[in-house]
Amino acid sequence: MGSAFVFLEASLELIPQKIRGHPAVRADAIRRGKRPEKILLDDSKHHTAMKSLEFREKRGRPDIVHQCLLLLLDSPLRDFEVYVHTLNGEIIWVNRETRLPRNYNRFVGLMEKLFEERRITAGDTTLIEFKDVGLRDIVRGRDVLLFREKGGRFEFSELLDGDVAVCIGAFPHGDFFEETLRELGEFKEVSLGTESYTSLYVTSRVLCEYERVRAHKVG
Amino acid sequence: MGSAFVFLEASLELIPQKIRGHPAVRADAIRRGKRPEKILLDDSKHHTAMKSLEFREKRGRPDIVHQCLLLLLDSPLRDFEVYVHTLNGEIIWVNRETRLPRNYNRFVGLMEKLFEERRITAGDTTLIEFKDVGLRDIVRGRDVLLFREKGGRFEFSELLDGDVAVCIGAFPHGDFFEETLRELGEFKEVSLGTESYTSLYVTSRVLCEYERVRAHKVG
Repeated sequence: MGSAFVFLEASLELIPQKIRGHPAVRADAIRRGKRPEKILLDDSKHHTAMKSLEFREKRGRPDIVHQCLLLLLDSPLRDFEVYVHTLNGEIIWVNRETRLPRNYNRFVGLMEKLFEERRITAGDTTLIEFKDVGLRDIVRGRDVLLFREKGGRFEFSELLDGDVAVCIGAFPHGDFFEETLRELGEFKEVSLGTESYTSLYVTSRVLCEYERVRAHKVG
Repeated sequence: MGSAFVFLEASLELIPQKIRGHPAVRADAIRRGKRPEKILLDDSKHHTAMKSLEFREKRGRPDIVHQCLLLLLDSPLRDFEVYVHTLNGEIIWVNRETRLPRNYNRFVGLMEKLFEERRITAGDTTLIEFKDVGLRDIVRGRDVLLFREKGGRFEFSELLDGDVAVCIGAFPHGDFFEETLRELGEFKEVSLGTESYTSLYVTSRVLCEYERVRAHKVG
């Protein structure tokens, strides 16, 4: 089994039907020479169009999961799987050996290709892939740790020792959907401290503690 | 005095004179409606133009220092200063309270503004500023720790306890310039392990260890 890092409710989706005709979206589509339905929703470009979207405070921020994935995949430790659970409940598996584009615009292009082709390969190796499974399937059999502001404080050496599913939100504002929490089944809510931390900071701290618990495996 | 994190030889510069007439640069300048000399060198856009540049393997990657700064500034600890030493030897001071744009393209725009106006303010607070000092001035009086692949392995609890200058390279390939090493004066070379680590990963690990040494201050 082994452990997994799961980025929850990642702010990663194509421009939704409802706003594809909006001037800000059309302008971006023309500039990029792409149809709106093929373009990743990005608050820095589609902000005015997003005003009418429900839970828009959680949407249009692919930069968040990009930066978290870059840091996680930079770790010398190879003993965990990497998943992205999107805001729309889709599951993306990321091959632990994947080297993502470090440039944001290149990452956006790759994610648009993934949404179109459902899989990214290099030769006969699958690097990134939509999986036809639910969130509950990828955490099953693991101790589910949900990192959350109002969680409890625990000793990392005990917490991170077994087969864990480290679940970190990858959206800018707001809290987890009830549906997501139901899908996780039984989980422990863990807090890093009294402040509100970014997804990138949580990924950094938890990765560091995870590596520390497995220190003998790191070079 | 206190401690400081210094990102060394950051891949952060405006398009150099030598390649401002190159087709790839001119096309980007037209697209952005900006003159080449006002645009940040970016390998993902100016790659073909950069072929003739010396030490080009270290240039055109502002994404590196962007991601490192985002993570560092996300820390709840406030007891350190933040500096960027650019590949061209300039010193940029970053106010510890600064909230940088998390979107890369917005960060590029902000850095172009900084290069133009030499200072970024919010009301009467200076957020980011070119300082008319040398690298030796900002590390003076601190224990200089240079994180480098071939460095020694040390106990972090001792290493990071006093007033330190944590120096992390912020360029993609290659090694430090002799000039930079001379400017640092006396320093200890520290390695994180046997692999070659990204700037983002080094920032993450060192920040985590730094916080651990000062654990009683973190929420």
